[in-house]
Amino acid sequence: MHSFPQLAASFEQHFQNRHFPLQPSTLYDAAQYILQIGGKRVRPVAVMMGNELFGNIQPDAYEMATAIELFHNFSLIHDDIMDNAPLRRGWETVHVKYGSSTALLSGDVMLVVAYEYINKTNAAVLPQLLQLFSRTAKEVCEGQQLDMDFEKMDTVSLDEYINMITLKTSVLLAASLQSGAIIGGASEDDQQHLYAFGKHLGIAFQVQDDYLDCFGDPEKFGKQVGGDILANKKTFLMIHALSASNAENKAKLMEQLSCNDPDKVQKVLDIYKACQADQWAESLKEKYYLEAMSHLEKINVDASRKVELQKLAMYLLQREA
Amino acid sequence: MHSFPQLAASFEQHFQNRHFPLQPSTLYDAAQYILQIGGKRVRPVAVMMGNELFGNIQPDAYEMATAIELFHNFSLIHDDIMDNAPLRRGWETVHVKYGSSTALLSGDVMLVVAYEYINKTNAAVLPQLLQLFSRTAKEVCEGQQLDMDFEKMDTVSLDEYINMITLKTSVLLAASLQSGAIIGGASEDDQQHLYAFGKHLGIAFQVQDDYLDCFGDPEKFGKQVGGDILANKKTFLMIHALSASNAENKAKLMEQLSCNDPDKVQKVLDIYKACQADQWAESLKEKYYLEAMSHLEKINVDASRKVELQKLAMYLLQREA
Repeated sequence: MHSFPQLAASFEQHFQNRHFPLQPSTLYDAAQYILQIGGKRVRPVAVMMGNELFGNIQPDAYEMATAIELFHNFSLIHDDIMDNAPLRRGWETVHVKYGSSTALLSGDVMLVVAYEYINKTNAAVLPQLLQLFSRTAKEVCEGQQLDMDFEKMDTVSLDEYINMITLKTSVLLAASLQSGAIIGGASEDDQQHLYAFGKHLGIAFQVQDDYLDCFGDPEKFGKQVGGDILANKKTFLMIHALSASNAENKAKLMEQLSCNDPDKVQKVLDIYKACQADQWAESLKEKYYLEAMSHLEKINVDASRKVELQKLAMYLLQREA
Repeated sequence: MHSFPQLAASFEQHFQNRHFPLQPSTLYDAAQYILQIGGKRVRPVAVMMGNELFGNIQPDAYEMATAIELFHNFSLIHDDIMDNAPLRRGWETVHVKYGSSTALLSGDVMLVVAYEYINKTNAAVLPQLLQLFSRTAKEVCEGQQLDMDFEKMDTVSLDEYINMITLKTSVLLAASLQSGAIIGGASEDDQQHLYAFGKHLGIAFQVQDDYLDCFGDPEKFGKQVGGDILANKKTFLMIHALSASNAENKAKLMEQLSCNDPDKVQKVLDIYKACQADQWAESLKEKYYLEAMSHLEKINVDASRKVELQKLAMYLLQREA
């Protein structure tokens, strides 16, 4: 069994191959640009871990991991256009550097190339991998649309938010793991438990992300504290605080959601603490973590094969071993 | 053998089924909207004709025809965003009606659904159909990028223009026909001749399109005469006129390409006529038409099976029987 860093390094070596033709460079330079910005490569490693759970890593896992990392980058390019984002991991976004039209097209072409990689897999698994990938791709688009819809809504329920977050971010991690399992010849039951492990882990990760944005150490987290508050985002914490606060604090929160008070971050954080949104978020994250682990337990392979996935969960959720 | 109208009607009946989930309606209503605007459905019919050339039409042809029509509409949505186009066949474009972000996403999701339809085809043809489709999709993106690049260039050679037009419009018609042939079990040679037939036909069609924009009957053509001239487009005619005109007329053309003279259209048309760009375009169209027909001839099936494809060529190129 291989560790996350080992698999990430192995994937990176494969992924450094050029994925696009050289011409027209006006199109493909933009596509190549975002790939060299890098990233943690969690999803492609998840494909490989999902594969290794059931046996030795197969060449198809690399093709599928590449497809999923390309898909992820396609979605980043298009999301950044929609969000009008200037920076991605500290680098200029593709649409800022190359213009919106080229960014749009280079995203399109990246999605197509992702499918080309899937088409390199064995004919015996191709239809199933394609089906899972396409379903997931649609769900990711749906999640992005719901996220945009929520910005225009006054209230969003916790269930609606969890559904959006599941679609926008969790299903891709889940599908990555399941893809590896499909390549590894896993039973339908084991595939579904691995998918559910990834889905719940993804939701727990998002709860943590929302939490750290408010209560994280800015040096460790690498982001400004309160970014979500300044952007009036309806996060797990905001949704909980709006439903759990007393009338006075609820009115204050609503007021903050539509103003630019210089003390906005501090005022909102005070209300979050008053209704114990921080503790609530920690227990919600724990709930999803435990659910993820219970699905991992049910997978019908020797416990020793599951260690790296347990470590992946701890790594993503910043838990001590 | 079935005629174009018969196949178009048969396809339309299949295509009227809903292709997307109902929710989120904010995303899928936009995708469904462009499909009901309609169109001539030339490409899906080409899939079916390519299939029928080699035997009875198979169910896979409908799946592939649907995939290709969805791909075509995906490219229209994204092209309209890039071109900032207000109207498409007289209807509001998707980005005008639903906003740019939703238009972008609904295009993305349409491309994914196109792949879902390909995945419904028989496992024996799936990898080959996928490969052809993805290669073609990439080429269409490349053609759109080159088209945008050309807008910023002072001069574009005839070869560069033909390459761009081939990628942007012809390869999809060619791939539609070849897809049908693949499903019909055609030999590699026959597939390639059918592809070449479609490619040359597509180029001839584009020469005609450029010609009609300048010299067509506006009532029949349904567009304002000189639209390309007003948009400073480097068309077949403009490229030829810039290379075939005398120094005086060349200077006049260059001047017109960067001004908004109220008599612009008439002045450019006069120069086109002076260098006989109209006759040149007609003979260029004829050259590509003949090349297309020579490839059709070489296909190893009974001549009687080719009649509908000959009629398709005449229909597209507005030739009398």
